[in-house]
Amino acid sequence: MEANAYDVIVIGGGISGLSAAKLLMESGLNPVVLEARDRVGGRTYTVQNKQTKWVDLGGAYIGPTQNRILRLAKQYGVQTYKVNEQESLVHHVKGKSYPYKGSFPPVWNPLALLDYNNLWRTMDKMGMEIPKEAPWRAPHAEEWDKMTMQELFKKVCWTSVARRFATLFVNVNVTSEPHEVSALWFLWYVKQCGGTMRIFSTTNGGQERKFVGGSSQISECMARELGDRVKLDSAVYSIDQTGDMVLVKTLHEDTYKAKYVILAIPPGLNLKIHFKPELPPIRNQLIHRVPMGSVIKCMVYYRENFWRKKGYCGSMVIEDEEAPIGLTLDDTKPDGTVPAIMGFILARKSRTLAGLTKEERKKRICEIYARVLGSDDALHPVHYEEKNWCEEEYSAGCYTVYFPPGILTQFGRVMREPVGRLYFAGTETATEWSGYMEGAVQAGERAAREILCMMGKIHSSQIWQPEPQSMDVPAVPFVTTFWERNLPSVGGFFKFLGVSSFLTVATVVGVVAYKKGLLPRS
Amino acid sequence: MEANAYDVIVIGGGISGLSAAKLLMESGLNPVVLEARDRVGGRTYTVQNKQTKWVDLGGAYIGPTQNRILRLAKQYGVQTYKVNEQESLVHHVKGKSYPYKGSFPPVWNPLALLDYNNLWRTMDKMGMEIPKEAPWRAPHAEEWDKMTMQELFKKVCWTSVARRFATLFVNVNVTSEPHEVSALWFLWYVKQCGGTMRIFSTTNGGQERKFVGGSSQISECMARELGDRVKLDSAVYSIDQTGDMVLVKTLHEDTYKAKYVILAIPPGLNLKIHFKPELPPIRNQLIHRVPMGSVIKCMVYYRENFWRKKGYCGSMVIEDEEAPIGLTLDDTKPDGTVPAIMGFILARKSRTLAGLTKEERKKRICEIYARVLGSDDALHPVHYEEKNWCEEEYSAGCYTVYFPPGILTQFGRVMREPVGRLYFAGTETATEWSGYMEGAVQAGERAAREILCMMGKIHSSQIWQPEPQSMDVPAVPFVTTFWERNLPSVGGFFKFLGVSSFLTVATVVGVVAYKKGLLPRS
Repeated sequence: MEANAYDVIVIGGGISGLSAAKLLMESGLNPVVLEARDRVGGRTYTVQNKQTKWVDLGGAYIGPTQNRILRLAKQYGVQTYKVNEQESLVHHVKGKSYPYKGSFPPVWNPLALLDYNNLWRTMDKMGMEIPKEAPWRAPHAEEWDKMTMQELFKKVCWTSVARRFATLFVNVNVTSEPHEVSALWFLWYVKQCGGTMRIFSTTNGGQERKFVGGSSQISECMARELGDRVKLDSAVYSIDQTGDMVLVKTLHEDTYKAKYVILAIPPGLNLKIHFKPELPPIRNQLIHRVPMGSVIKCMVYYRENFWRKKGYCGSMVIEDEEAPIGLTLDDTKPDGTVPAIMGFILARKSRTLAGLTKEERKKRICEIYARVLGSDDALHPVHYEEKNWCEEEYSAGCYTVYFPPGILTQFGRVMREPVGRLYFAGTETATEWSGYMEGAVQAGERAAREILCMMGKIHSSQIWQPEPQSMDVPAVPFVTTFWERNLPSVGGFFKFLGVSSFLTVATVVGVVAYKKGLLPRS
Repeated sequence: MEANAYDVIVIGGGISGLSAAKLLMESGLNPVVLEARDRVGGRTYTVQNKQTKWVDLGGAYIGPTQNRILRLAKQYGVQTYKVNEQESLVHHVKGKSYPYKGSFPPVWNPLALLDYNNLWRTMDKMGMEIPKEAPWRAPHAEEWDKMTMQELFKKVCWTSVARRFATLFVNVNVTSEPHEVSALWFLWYVKQCGGTMRIFSTTNGGQERKFVGGSSQISECMARELGDRVKLDSAVYSIDQTGDMVLVKTLHEDTYKAKYVILAIPPGLNLKIHFKPELPPIRNQLIHRVPMGSVIKCMVYYRENFWRKKGYCGSMVIEDEEAPIGLTLDDTKPDGTVPAIMGFILARKSRTLAGLTKEERKKRICEIYARVLGSDDALHPVHYEEKNWCEEEYSAGCYTVYFPPGILTQFGRVMREPVGRLYFAGTETATEWSGYMEGAVQAGERAAREILCMMGKIHSSQIWQPEPQSMDVPAVPFVTTFWERNLPSVGGFFKFLGVSSFLTVATVVGVVAYKKGLLPRS
């Protein structure tokens, strides 16, 4: 069979692969993109129908400092809009709902307050020690990598209040459990997103905005530019780089050849491909060690956004082992139509709830919304959409990879190390907002430039390029207060209490002794 | 293309797949075995050459209670012989070598002795709580699964002596690190091998014997029986069970069809296959979460077995961060010819040492042997063989799978749960000696019987069958001594010390008070 010849074969038609191919084409090369699914977009997936107009069942949120994806959106005229956070957010814990404003739910118990404050401060401080391009070089890399986040939380948190919220923080950010992930890896992840505030915030953070019309548009616009260079239904099962040209075969028995290949897929999905020659041992084992997180994205549609009338913006942070959903955001369209609430079924919960029917899941979700929002209106949805990313063979989970303990220091350094003429993209290989659409663009363009560099078209110093800040979505720095910086931890507070009790007791004893004439008066 | 029709397609021509096919054929069915490599045997791999006569570069050891593999060997007339343990074993620690006899190196420091004794006793006691066929049902399953073995060792061990040896114990038994593995999983693993003594012992344990002529013979004999039903060079990349018959495609573009399929490959290697329809979500994510361990098996050949003359049997237990090898065994042929030492480069060490050349590895290995055995003869090998299992695309590591924290309780129950007409074998799905050749036979025959049951040829109560004890290799029960059962742990000892110090001090104070006339004399 005659092989179709290109300059570069890009495997994976998500944002990363398409932005690699786009840059290669703009540099005068002839790339082809092989996509396993019958659509582009990968883990972004916009569905259009009458009930929802459009809905993002995959990656959707963007925010300040995500300048590359914002640049692409602007180029294609895709507008962004702010996720509604006008009214109060709700924190639901121990069966009660507490409205609040700001990035994190406030805490009233003074000990828990110290504990919370110390937790975020400690995570950000540890993150500052971790180089985002090489976390395995952090001074305490080995020690932190041998620890799970559960172990770290046990060390850092004194109160169960903080420990429970910390669990939700891991669940929401990386769709996995604190006991599943390496502390080094999670601290790196939060750091390369800009810290605990940036990653968790809606306003001024990772969830500030969405794309009007859905996030798939970015991929679709790139695919349109690439034209028939994008091949759908083309899952790759074989790569042979033993000859002059790299040979790539797809399930439908098409063969492609090229000088270079970019794998713009999650590292674990490299396993779908039979390699000739075999991958080097470290990479061969890496790709068995980096699973994708677990999440079901659920959208409930209502006749009206009754929550806003009650003073709630639609953001709920739900701590309750029985609740299916851990975090929600308002998903009403920017013009106020199609009132909806987006909620995530996260990590351990996605496993138990996957066994229910779609109807049952919808019912349970509406019930928790009714409890949290204190409104029976939540029990009467007009429509429901969901997507269980754990069932996708060609994603293997969402949002992104996680590293179990011990893997990042031993295998991390080969994540984006080329193997012969194979180069590695995909948001997992990014160093800024890895796990997000932004990281996908960074990784795709970097991999494209690695090849341009190999071809002598650019200098190696040009491979990694910083991105100018978006004018439309500027980032505001997070300012910590004096108290946030200087309040003691609970441990420190007790130490302080200990010292002051000792001084108090000593003083009292001295005074009494003096009064009773037991001390010599000079 | 016309598909070749069979009753059952078995994927994987290791011991598990072949014993499944053998049983199916003996039951009157027509199976076919598709093997990716150009040889059968999988993770057993016997090489023949002038220098070694024959050498097992993969799985080699068998012992009492492994009755299924012993039954197969006997059927084919493959003899076993005892690994030499006549002379002393050596424990090398802190730069010094200590000869000893028995299963575990002895400890002289009394505190360390209590700590060691308590460690093995605790692991075996915890193991007794874990059902070998369903470890996720153990009373403390969730708690133990969220913990790594490193965490458990921190809790159980008081002395660094015990903690260091415990690390080696994990390295040797499962070719991974204590911080990488779930405590629940590791405790289950040791339990289903018969406990800490059975798994670690040479005499009366998992390493008691080898096959004369090498372990691959078992697979080769089965393959010979199966004849042209075994297809080599037939890596499978696609399984389609949407039609009446299951369609299976191989890299060489052959298509097979059958009513049932057995996947007799490690769970992670399921990922080499594109499934239609997609696997259910839990299995889809399971197979990304269960990596194979890391090991390089190294054989050094000498003119004579100089160690025996020095009173050493050739077994070395080496605790030294700089030493490449963690455990050795004599590999001299049963007739005393071809003197050799087998050594394992384990877990973390396989990663760093993979970067060296074969020559360099050989040199470093000989150097540590010379230090441990106190003999320059070790520096003059006549031949060297090695196999890095981490580089094998179709094994992905050795000896077997390990479970990182959190996976066994959440995903373990689907390990051998059929998916449509797909059934799962491979030693990883066994409940006795999983990870060993014995487990491979148990799993293969069980999967075959699951299909026989589906076809109405046997009753479901016949699927799981116990195996009568081998007459030639009987198991001797391990008897614990009164002291092993009743010595306190270090913690218990200190508690006891505390109580007795208190009583001592109280008595002394009483006596002194009495003597000084401070107590009222009646």
